[in-house]
Amino acid sequence: MKAAKFYSALNIQIEEVQQSKIDDGIVKIAVEWAGICGSDMHEFLAGPFFAKSKVTLGHEFSGTVVEIGAGVTKVSVGDRVVVEPFYSCGDCDACTEGLYNLCKKVECYGFSDDGGFAEFVTVRESRIYKIPDELGFEVAALVEPTAVALHAVRKSQLKSGDSCAIYGAGPIGLLLVQVAKVIGAKEIIVVELSEERRKKALEIGATHVINPENEKPVKEINKIVRGGVHVAFDAAGAESSFIAALASLRHTGELMIVSLWEKNVSFSPNMLVIGERKINSSLGYRHNFQEVIHLLASGKIDGSKLITNKIYIDDIVKKGFEKLKNDKTQCKILVTPKESNI
Amino acid sequence: MKAAKFYSALNIQIEEVQQSKIDDGIVKIAVEWAGICGSDMHEFLAGPFFAKSKVTLGHEFSGTVVEIGAGVTKVSVGDRVVVEPFYSCGDCDACTEGLYNLCKKVECYGFSDDGGFAEFVTVRESRIYKIPDELGFEVAALVEPTAVALHAVRKSQLKSGDSCAIYGAGPIGLLLVQVAKVIGAKEIIVVELSEERRKKALEIGATHVINPENEKPVKEINKIVRGGVHVAFDAAGAESSFIAALASLRHTGELMIVSLWEKNVSFSPNMLVIGERKINSSLGYRHNFQEVIHLLASGKIDGSKLITNKIYIDDIVKKGFEKLKNDKTQCKILVTPKESNI
Repeated sequence: MKAAKFYSALNIQIEEVQQSKIDDGIVKIAVEWAGICGSDMHEFLAGPFFAKSKVTLGHEFSGTVVEIGAGVTKVSVGDRVVVEPFYSCGDCDACTEGLYNLCKKVECYGFSDDGGFAEFVTVRESRIYKIPDELGFEVAALVEPTAVALHAVRKSQLKSGDSCAIYGAGPIGLLLVQVAKVIGAKEIIVVELSEERRKKALEIGATHVINPENEKPVKEINKIVRGGVHVAFDAAGAESSFIAALASLRHTGELMIVSLWEKNVSFSPNMLVIGERKINSSLGYRHNFQEVIHLLASGKIDGSKLITNKIYIDDIVKKGFEKLKNDKTQCKILVTPKESNI
Repeated sequence: MKAAKFYSALNIQIEEVQQSKIDDGIVKIAVEWAGICGSDMHEFLAGPFFAKSKVTLGHEFSGTVVEIGAGVTKVSVGDRVVVEPFYSCGDCDACTEGLYNLCKKVECYGFSDDGGFAEFVTVRESRIYKIPDELGFEVAALVEPTAVALHAVRKSQLKSGDSCAIYGAGPIGLLLVQVAKVIGAKEIIVVELSEERRKKALEIGATHVINPENEKPVKEINKIVRGGVHVAFDAAGAESSFIAALASLRHTGELMIVSLWEKNVSFSPNMLVIGERKINSSLGYRHNFQEVIHLLASGKIDGSKLITNKIYIDDIVKKGFEKLKNDKTQCKILVTPKESNI
């Protein structure tokens, strides 16, 4: 079968590889669509970080069950499914507390084990969720990043009627907008450099957008919400967004960090103490795939708005990774290994 | 009457000044004891920060009511009292939410208005709390800093049976130790440079002490509590303690900042995200003086252990401010304007 193999930075190869065997408890899925994630881009541009050499990338995917190993009861051949790609040790303190996303031995399809940029992928039964007919395979490939956004909002102190600011309107930032809208936030203010992304943010539920190149975000936010917002989400991962996000908060406000960081930030903790503000953080997700499937299947979150391109697996480098690098109007690019999908 | 007037850094003068008149709703207190706080030291060494020129310093004090203005019903002449020194505008968002310690127009006896390093002090009725007979005037002067520690612990996620680390064992750090003990923390680990203060910490309830000059705090803490502590309190206010306190936390652990900061800190937010840790902050106190009075009067917190010296007001610079600057074995120095107290 075809698979997109990661070798090193800027070196992803489409290869013909053997399909894995189906052991007990393992399920084989024919992939329909798989999204390119920011972390895949990270591996492509400057990796390896988490990706093993020669691993098949892709951890946001949907497909159809084509074979099940002995003992599998959760799904049957023909079921339409998505996969929660992380699996943890099950035995450490974090795992036994139910916080499996914080397991230090966590593994992930698409990084440490072969993922969804391939015709077929084999995964543990426990990681699979059936999807309803009303959820198409394309939007279903967005279940995984939507789970990131839902987890972050659920962990934050954002309540119905509250105000929030979202720094960065890449896929996660835009999904944060939609989740904030679903839970009834009043002001949803997006700070983003790209005009295309600001437009998209307004289209899907942002109440205000700010271009930090032309306007001072904190000043503008204070014009919209006197005293600042209840929660600011950092989905940008830069010192400038960190500082501005903190300064956007009202007293007792919360900065929720959803991003990963390449560099240190320098700030005065007095920004927290004066006003009793706080910083919270969110890593991946846990226990929320069923809820996300409902939100996307019901249309409460419109995943289709994020999809800016759909490509065939052979074109994954040129029309996928390189396009995402060079064209900031792109948001989520989906990849299929089925020629009939294109 | 005698009063210790702040002019500028290193310039505090004992002067003979006129007593204030008693307006409606105002109470005059004959001061018994007043503590020198870290923030007083801050004004003395490098101020002014919050202190107005020619203000009488001192915001941690006890005394006896000697005169009441028209309309005062909360206290009578002869009552033994302490004073919550901050008073807020009552009209802003923070005030109307009950978060009066976060009022941006907050005023404070001992900084913006005359305080307790004097024979008499006049304060608004609402700021006064009667103290029971079993609470001596000396320990009563510790109600204010104890309120800081109780507020920080109450705001933190520290629960009975949990572990905590306290960075810095000045008066606030030592009071955090005692509050953590009262609420049933299991491990109370103090990180402090001064040997005297480490000794004191062990004496009043710390289960372990670490000298960061000889030992690596994070490594030692992990030997005591596998995976790190539930809550780390920063009562030191330095980048090194901030970083070590963050690194001391278990997954989902909380850094509670109780200190004010003169410099920025540089850190990687990944220290939060990987493990979903958080940073919280605590400024002063609110709504807890009655509870603190109970804790000190009942002996659940032994305030007397913090008092290392008692001096007459005439000696406040030499035996008070300068001694605290030069002698790190000192903890809380109390000042009295009554010669008969010495």
